[in-house]
Amino acid sequence: MKDQGKAKRGIPSKSEFNSWYPAIVEIADLVDKRYPIKGMDVWKPYGWKAMSLIDSITRLQMDLTDHNEYRFPLLVPEDLLEKENRLVAKLKSARDLDVDPSELRLDEEDAGFKNEVYWVKHGGENKLDIPMFLRPTSETPMYNMFSLWVRSHADLPLKTYQIVNTFRYETKQTRSFIRVREIHFFEAHTVHKNEENATLQIKEDAQIVQKILNELCLPNIISKRPLWDTFPGAWYTTAADVIMPNGRTLQVATYHHYRDQWAKSFDISYEDENGNNNFCHQTTFGMSERLLGAVVAVHGDDSGLILPPSISPIQVVIMPIATHISEEVLIYSQKIKEELHSNGIRTKIDNRDIRPGNKHYHWEIKGVPIRLEIGPKDISKNQCIVSLRTGGKEILLLEDLTTSINTCLESISNVLRVRANTLHNNMISMAPKSIVNDGKLIFQEEIKDGIVYEIPFEGNDADAELLEKSSGLSLLGECEQPYEEPMSCIITGKMTTKKQYLARMY
Amino acid sequence: MKDQGKAKRGIPSKSEFNSWYPAIVEIADLVDKRYPIKGMDVWKPYGWKAMSLIDSITRLQMDLTDHNEYRFPLLVPEDLLEKENRLVAKLKSARDLDVDPSELRLDEEDAGFKNEVYWVKHGGENKLDIPMFLRPTSETPMYNMFSLWVRSHADLPLKTYQIVNTFRYETKQTRSFIRVREIHFFEAHTVHKNEENATLQIKEDAQIVQKILNELCLPNIISKRPLWDTFPGAWYTTAADVIMPNGRTLQVATYHHYRDQWAKSFDISYEDENGNNNFCHQTTFGMSERLLGAVVAVHGDDSGLILPPSISPIQVVIMPIATHISEEVLIYSQKIKEELHSNGIRTKIDNRDIRPGNKHYHWEIKGVPIRLEIGPKDISKNQCIVSLRTGGKEILLLEDLTTSINTCLESISNVLRVRANTLHNNMISMAPKSIVNDGKLIFQEEIKDGIVYEIPFEGNDADAELLEKSSGLSLLGECEQPYEEPMSCIITGKMTTKKQYLARMY
Repeated sequence: MKDQGKAKRGIPSKSEFNSWYPAIVEIADLVDKRYPIKGMDVWKPYGWKAMSLIDSITRLQMDLTDHNEYRFPLLVPEDLLEKENRLVAKLKSARDLDVDPSELRLDEEDAGFKNEVYWVKHGGENKLDIPMFLRPTSETPMYNMFSLWVRSHADLPLKTYQIVNTFRYETKQTRSFIRVREIHFFEAHTVHKNEENATLQIKEDAQIVQKILNELCLPNIISKRPLWDTFPGAWYTTAADVIMPNGRTLQVATYHHYRDQWAKSFDISYEDENGNNNFCHQTTFGMSERLLGAVVAVHGDDSGLILPPSISPIQVVIMPIATHISEEVLIYSQKIKEELHSNGIRTKIDNRDIRPGNKHYHWEIKGVPIRLEIGPKDISKNQCIVSLRTGGKEILLLEDLTTSINTCLESISNVLRVRANTLHNNMISMAPKSIVNDGKLIFQEEIKDGIVYEIPFEGNDADAELLEKSSGLSLLGECEQPYEEPMSCIITGKMTTKKQYLARMY
Repeated sequence: MKDQGKAKRGIPSKSEFNSWYPAIVEIADLVDKRYPIKGMDVWKPYGWKAMSLIDSITRLQMDLTDHNEYRFPLLVPEDLLEKENRLVAKLKSARDLDVDPSELRLDEEDAGFKNEVYWVKHGGENKLDIPMFLRPTSETPMYNMFSLWVRSHADLPLKTYQIVNTFRYETKQTRSFIRVREIHFFEAHTVHKNEENATLQIKEDAQIVQKILNELCLPNIISKRPLWDTFPGAWYTTAADVIMPNGRTLQVATYHHYRDQWAKSFDISYEDENGNNNFCHQTTFGMSERLLGAVVAVHGDDSGLILPPSISPIQVVIMPIATHISEEVLIYSQKIKEELHSNGIRTKIDNRDIRPGNKHYHWEIKGVPIRLEIGPKDISKNQCIVSLRTGGKEILLLEDLTTSINTCLESISNVLRVRANTLHNNMISMAPKSIVNDGKLIFQEEIKDGIVYEIPFEGNDADAELLEKSSGLSLLGECEQPYEEPMSCIITGKMTTKKQYLARMY
């Protein structure tokens, strides 16, 4: 019967992840992809609520760390982009030539974001004086204002964030939550007195990311992106990647140390205690709806979603059971709902007059952590029966039900963490042995799809290029956690404790 | 000292409302208008938080009435607009000619929204195949999906809403919150089996609007807009207008009965219990950041904002008082903050080392309802001193402080309601006596600026035009509350109970 239910709803097996993922986001009613613009999905209430709960977790963390929420305009006038383009061109040339950026002249040709944005050039029938674009991210509109807001050391640190829609003119294949053209986006931007304070901010960001990913039960790899994959304008970029069930890595958070590079372009400076004027140091920290994509991908199974209790729009669904649902059972259900609800547990009663089996499938697909059944017999016993979405049934007494339910929710989170960790660790292998011969890197075993390879690596850019070309994979960057004992670098043979990962990235 | 403070901060007198309003929104740090696109302000944290609190009030009401929150894409492909344009053209012609719209052929020339939207025709360097526009409101993108979602009577009612950024290519003078180009917008869209059910929805909307406006302490006029001011595509439009201190009315909410007009254009139909296919009936309900504009305008005074407690980002600001703030006073302040905070009262401690007078001015400008002072003497007496932003000081005992503070907050709301009602009623006058002579309407006293005129009116469109031309004002529409005794219509002289208002509208 169970398999019939699944087949009827058309959920592919999760072992076929590339079919399962796009199917489940629609079957579980998170989004509707039939909107007539590719890569712009309609958020359905269930998906939007889950995303809003992720946003709430983020807002709480921002609040605890004294960030303030702003809302900047979506449209950016083209002339503001010039400053950004010049900065990016300058840094890019500097990297290519390996010289100090301040010694370079600018290459006005360099396009920066220009090719990745949507342009607004007309209002009604009128051509606008200055073309505008839809923000792909908000450095440009924000820093223009920061230069007005920051005057003295007393204005620092300035810790801002916003949760907004951003846009990328995406030419690659789109995927719900993972690669879209209108992005539900979180971005924090901070301004500091000096490099050291900005570095402390980066450390705070790192902690916040781990707190949020822990709430979502998502293990992840933290690495410092290689220079060529650093955000334009950043001194360095650190990223959190989640390993998806098909072995590809999904970048779900990045935080960037900008030093004073943007400040110099946008003239963000302050007068210090001694009356001297200094350029500020800045950081940014970004996340997006990809967090929800990772949750769906990592935790779901053949029967549907499994949502971590922290972001499940419904944590407990109450199902009154009886051939004909009696008044008594309904009153009892309502009483339980009110108790749980008043204790902050998101609860819903499903009293539709359909077969219990169908209700089960429905809430299984939706990934609701706890199904709570109440039949006429349970009332006399002052109890109810709960089924956990991660497996297992329990009889709970009505007395102190909130505590019991909270214990179940916590246990579900822990099961998800353990399972996700196992999956994560199983996806990682040491790279096969290899030799460098005549400028080529030859692996002694085939590089397989669906594996994240771990390697000791301490080479230069040319070595990295060789590595990526030979493996067909990308280098995530240097991991925070080095090897305890030095190992031999896969290319140079030098002894190093630097751990890196090679993976197919989304 | 107080006047010095005000002068220093440059707040114009509120009697000069047209100078006061644009000044106070920046002085109170709600928005920054220096963003380089006119009519697109940056929301500062204090303004954004107040707006978010208004959104929370709205979300709660939506939740209580079983509406679900969606999020639709911002961009709309041009070809979807065709359906809307045809509908609008059809209805417009029908009104002009006074015939049944279904008998009309379509006028393809009619532009509808076309002249009021921002156009996206380029992605990067590429010209898009189909131009897209930024939503001015979401009928078009939503109804396209509704036609896929609604199949059977079991899918109805469909009650949706979203809170999003919308855009108008505004050529009139812009004003923060009141007339902007990127609008923080709320829109509910519902689909029903029949006209009657849609009418019940309109009644529910009317109740929701009054609940929200009551939380914001805003008296308002409800009227059914005249036909020429009805939303394109609507059967009828009801609006809530707030009278601003300069006597102009600000439309802050509208709800529209669409009958089955849009459903026929967008093919939104359902199979009923008997297997027959019927077109659906629809309603919409919209509000925007204008709600915040009305709050600022109606409640503020010469010293700054006065925020209703329901949306004040800070409800109680604690000010430890001492020449040098002692450890003891700080601990005491912290204890009070924690008690209030844990009882859901938004509380902040201001322990900056500046003169108490400056703190007072600061929080007065921000419109924080309650300032709570604690000096060394208060500790021994187990008390604190509160000043209400609406006037008055009280000594409160620490015992049961939460209850006392909640009583103060309630009393502040009530004072705001009473004051706003008085202002509202004072702004309304019966229109001066008039005579119709040789096709002209001559008022026996001059029509004055800053007054909303009440009139008995039951004329036709031509009469209304005469009325508007002669007075230089606009007709808001027919009020819900008729006269108890029939009066003589200002134009036709016929006896009528229909009450209408003439005003300068924003």
